[in-house]
Amino acid sequence: MNKQKAAALKEPKLSFAVTTGALPASRKIHIGGVAMREIELSKASGEAAVTVYDTSGPYSDPSVNIDIYKGLSKLRDAWIRARGDVEEYEGRVVKPEDNGLKDSGFGIQDSGVETFPHVNTRPLRARSGKAATQMAYARAGIITSEMEYIAIRENEGRINPVGGLVAAQDPAQSLRASQDLRPYQKGESFGAKIPEFITPEFVRDEVASGRAIIPNNINHPESEPMIIGRNFKVKINANIGNSAVTSSVAEEVEKMVWSIRWGADTVMDLSTGRSIHNIREWIIRNSPVPIGTVPIYQALEKVGGVAEELTYEIFRDTLIEQCEQGVDYFTIHAGVRLPFIPMTEHRKTGIVSRGGSILAKWCMSHHKENFLYTHFEDICELLKQYDVSFSLGDGLRPGSIHDANDEAQFSELKTLGELTKIAWKHDVQTMIEGPGHVPMHLIKENMDRQLELCHEAPFYTLGPLTTDIAPGYDHITSAIGAAMIGWFGTAMLCYVTPKEHLGLPDRDDVKVGVISYKIAAHAADLAKGHPSAHRRDDALSKARFDFRWQDQFNLSLDPETAKDFHDETLPAEGAKVAHFCSMCGPKFCSMKISQDVREYAASEREKGMQEMAEKFKESGGEIYQKVPA
Amino acid sequence: MNKQKAAALKEPKLSFAVTTGALPASRKIHIGGVAMREIELSKASGEAAVTVYDTSGPYSDPSVNIDIYKGLSKLRDAWIRARGDVEEYEGRVVKPEDNGLKDSGFGIQDSGVETFPHVNTRPLRARSGKAATQMAYARAGIITSEMEYIAIRENEGRINPVGGLVAAQDPAQSLRASQDLRPYQKGESFGAKIPEFITPEFVRDEVASGRAIIPNNINHPESEPMIIGRNFKVKINANIGNSAVTSSVAEEVEKMVWSIRWGADTVMDLSTGRSIHNIREWIIRNSPVPIGTVPIYQALEKVGGVAEELTYEIFRDTLIEQCEQGVDYFTIHAGVRLPFIPMTEHRKTGIVSRGGSILAKWCMSHHKENFLYTHFEDICELLKQYDVSFSLGDGLRPGSIHDANDEAQFSELKTLGELTKIAWKHDVQTMIEGPGHVPMHLIKENMDRQLELCHEAPFYTLGPLTTDIAPGYDHITSAIGAAMIGWFGTAMLCYVTPKEHLGLPDRDDVKVGVISYKIAAHAADLAKGHPSAHRRDDALSKARFDFRWQDQFNLSLDPETAKDFHDETLPAEGAKVAHFCSMCGPKFCSMKISQDVREYAASEREKGMQEMAEKFKESGGEIYQKVPA
Repeated sequence: MNKQKAAALKEPKLSFAVTTGALPASRKIHIGGVAMREIELSKASGEAAVTVYDTSGPYSDPSVNIDIYKGLSKLRDAWIRARGDVEEYEGRVVKPEDNGLKDSGFGIQDSGVETFPHVNTRPLRARSGKAATQMAYARAGIITSEMEYIAIRENEGRINPVGGLVAAQDPAQSLRASQDLRPYQKGESFGAKIPEFITPEFVRDEVASGRAIIPNNINHPESEPMIIGRNFKVKINANIGNSAVTSSVAEEVEKMVWSIRWGADTVMDLSTGRSIHNIREWIIRNSPVPIGTVPIYQALEKVGGVAEELTYEIFRDTLIEQCEQGVDYFTIHAGVRLPFIPMTEHRKTGIVSRGGSILAKWCMSHHKENFLYTHFEDICELLKQYDVSFSLGDGLRPGSIHDANDEAQFSELKTLGELTKIAWKHDVQTMIEGPGHVPMHLIKENMDRQLELCHEAPFYTLGPLTTDIAPGYDHITSAIGAAMIGWFGTAMLCYVTPKEHLGLPDRDDVKVGVISYKIAAHAADLAKGHPSAHRRDDALSKARFDFRWQDQFNLSLDPETAKDFHDETLPAEGAKVAHFCSMCGPKFCSMKISQDVREYAASEREKGMQEMAEKFKESGGEIYQKVPA
Repeated sequence: MNKQKAAALKEPKLSFAVTTGALPASRKIHIGGVAMREIELSKASGEAAVTVYDTSGPYSDPSVNIDIYKGLSKLRDAWIRARGDVEEYEGRVVKPEDNGLKDSGFGIQDSGVETFPHVNTRPLRARSGKAATQMAYARAGIITSEMEYIAIRENEGRINPVGGLVAAQDPAQSLRASQDLRPYQKGESFGAKIPEFITPEFVRDEVASGRAIIPNNINHPESEPMIIGRNFKVKINANIGNSAVTSSVAEEVEKMVWSIRWGADTVMDLSTGRSIHNIREWIIRNSPVPIGTVPIYQALEKVGGVAEELTYEIFRDTLIEQCEQGVDYFTIHAGVRLPFIPMTEHRKTGIVSRGGSILAKWCMSHHKENFLYTHFEDICELLKQYDVSFSLGDGLRPGSIHDANDEAQFSELKTLGELTKIAWKHDVQTMIEGPGHVPMHLIKENMDRQLELCHEAPFYTLGPLTTDIAPGYDHITSAIGAAMIGWFGTAMLCYVTPKEHLGLPDRDDVKVGVISYKIAAHAADLAKGHPSAHRRDDALSKARFDFRWQDQFNLSLDPETAKDFHDETLPAEGAKVAHFCSMCGPKFCSMKISQDVREYAASEREKGMQEMAEKFKESGGEIYQKVPA
């Protein structure tokens, strides 16, 4: 294909349309330079606007001109360079096999997905002898701009009365005076210690200790800093990705934009087919949230899908490729050790992790220990140069209720804990992946063991699904488990869509998956007693009780669906200010009656006070009455 | 309207079509006279069929001719009469106001919904001095046919090796030998004691103690006996009902049939508009599951919607009306006591229960104690004659996270416990209703207090919703809470549909609500260690691992949706036997790789054994080798 033809292919920009615009009644505000979403409530109510955490980036800001051919502006570029620890260098040359084109005879331009027009061929890495990771800075006592950004972001517009936006503060002092709280605010944190206000120093301390990570590759300066750790808001991840069977780049970029619009805190690109290098470039350059990948997927493509032919050299080259592109965290299944593989044999569902089964096959074929395990220190050295975080994969996670919490699973978890120590030795930020399919009574053991074996490194779980009998509804079977394990201390929840086990999620599935997991994460925040969490519930409940329908819609996680559902029964505009709803009808509404009760009670009290006043006058108006003899 | 015209209206039977037919690969089987559903698996798999609990009644049995103009056959009629404790009598005459036609000038036939053609004008009641309740029989040491039916039903086709289907057995002896179980089977029951097999004697004992109820009015002989108690499978309820704004009888009867098709164990008819007497008759005569109501709704209709005009006499007359029709359990808000009402004043959402707010208004208006509380013993005397169960309503339940577990709620719960004792004195079966909106960390307190204050009477909760911020998704916010409280010991979970707080559920919403709650109930059974629960998960997981797509669909709670979702990506028939799915594509499937790993491991073992055998031969073939010196 010649250049002119390739250029022509770029013309129909329609196929690259992404969803933009503010959510209903919402506007982008900036507090200390941090973008947040302010939800305005009806003027008549006199209620203050509610400021909430915002993952949607500039796409929901009408004042920003979105051009995905240019990519997002590089928020962090100056911060990264100003620290003086990085250098530009001549990056790795993109190879045909990066796009699944080995032996195809086609060139890079013919991969099916055009190359992003502004690829940076001079990526950054740490200068020799330097570590460019947030953990290295945190341990050196340095509060980075990223940490300051996160502190403001996590407070969701609540201004710390002591010190304002970014003042350093002793974390212990800011722990909440729980005796003043109502039970619903107190929470039960199971050892998590969330302060009333997050300070930059608190962020630094959590990162230094390994209890939290800030996934942000120095080659992804477009990302808005965020943190994953159990002393912060619970986060959620959405998976996207093409596959050999379906999907295209246009869909994938839009899936990223679509999932962050509804609240995804990070996005994993799990593409496996052709053009994955190119697709990833488009996603990263346009993503304000951290991007995670499972590099073994691409490495396997490079050897034609034959697991036995994988080598560490091919894998390492893939890591460099993705480090330079700006991937923020890698799932690395280094805990799938040779001796653990036979432990899965009597499972109902064997090894269900894709990465886990690839490595198991490799290990068995070669009678050798997992090459990710044997080369783990080398991988640390690499990730340290780009500040890519580990997401240590649970390749032996249970794929059914039957297999939960077995020897294979916990043997791997113990290994992941050992690897965490090694990663930390190299100042590499690390989180730990968790299951999977677990019945409710076995969930807490997962969290407790993870905290113990992995030294409080953040836990990042997939669900877990609490039963296997509802394919088509696994966003629900798993939201139950996700809410619980989030409450117990999991820092990030990987979403599950209704299509899990059945097919690839479409646009609607992605949205339902994200909303289901926002519910789980928020329910967990509430139960942990996160000081910010109940504000939105309280505001929405008040709107509901006041029959402010529009405010109720606007405060909800999915304003469009809430409004559509309401309008199905009562479409008239008038009904949105009506003091009743379709469940009970105009004459028979409990909230209406309950309001009447309040008014009645107030008038009764007044009447009572008038009676008292009259009695007072009758008795001569003395404040202190004589005690009757 | 003349009779001819009314008759003509009956003609278009199309509007009375209900859903019939078996679910995919399922057939109705009978074990000891108890209908169950058998799900057949693919012959090639060699796997046994899976027998599951079936709430759908004869509608899913193609051998039964369904005619809703006749109603269902009267399974229990002979049992009830054979006990010799009941008598027929001339029933209450239906009044215009029963159908909301007071002062309307219309006759009964003009209520908008025709009268059921075979109304029984001679209902049953207990003979003077007799109690016709299952609790009375249970306490007298009598095992009723209903109890025998339930014992078989709860075992779901598992045959007790000791004594077979209905043998009496010491419950303590049949408790599971937990040391033999795998962790996923053991469960954590929080004090529930579910035996390995349910026996009729166990059922009797649970009913006698009040720990379980069998809601079955002697005037609803069409019902298939079922039990609600924490030592049995967790049950779910679906609410249906017209309203002043929308809906019709055709929709309501079908909603009942539709909700039991997907697994509703009981159905509450919450109709409030015109024709509610007639609609209820159609529903009861065609319902194989217990029907519950909130009689205060109808009583309020009879006084034109003005709460202050309610009297105990009108309410009592409504109870008789519904007792004679065959309602199986009544929600009675007798715990909304006058002194508790002011406790709700500083709530975020006041009183959200419709019944609770009606009674609160009445109490405030008259400055009097709740007439349901003051006449409670009289109500007991009435319910005892028909074996209607109490569902003691939580009129002061929290309507928001903010209001959870407050003084008003727990004061009422304590009163419900006192009323339970009174009901039991009269041999009236009783369950207790619970919230509502509760953050996760406050859920267990609800269960613990209920068990303590209400003497282990079954708990029946609405959700609870674990956050307020997701209207449109409250089937999910509440499935999280429902699964947890079911695990902790709640016996029945009242479903919440996606339309909660927004509008009336349509057909799809009812289905989604029921499936969501089947998930919650089943997840609870699994976590409690119910000995029957894991069978379906295991069968489905095995089918999944074996790529038996069709078996996976058929075993799922909603086979249609599972199949549709799969076919969206891979519609070809061939794909249903393919050893891959659309998530990963043909070359890249973890389950496929995992199977390869197993085969490889097996061949390695064999090779290893051959090597061993060769070494054995080489060494001279001695079984006991000499120790090398």
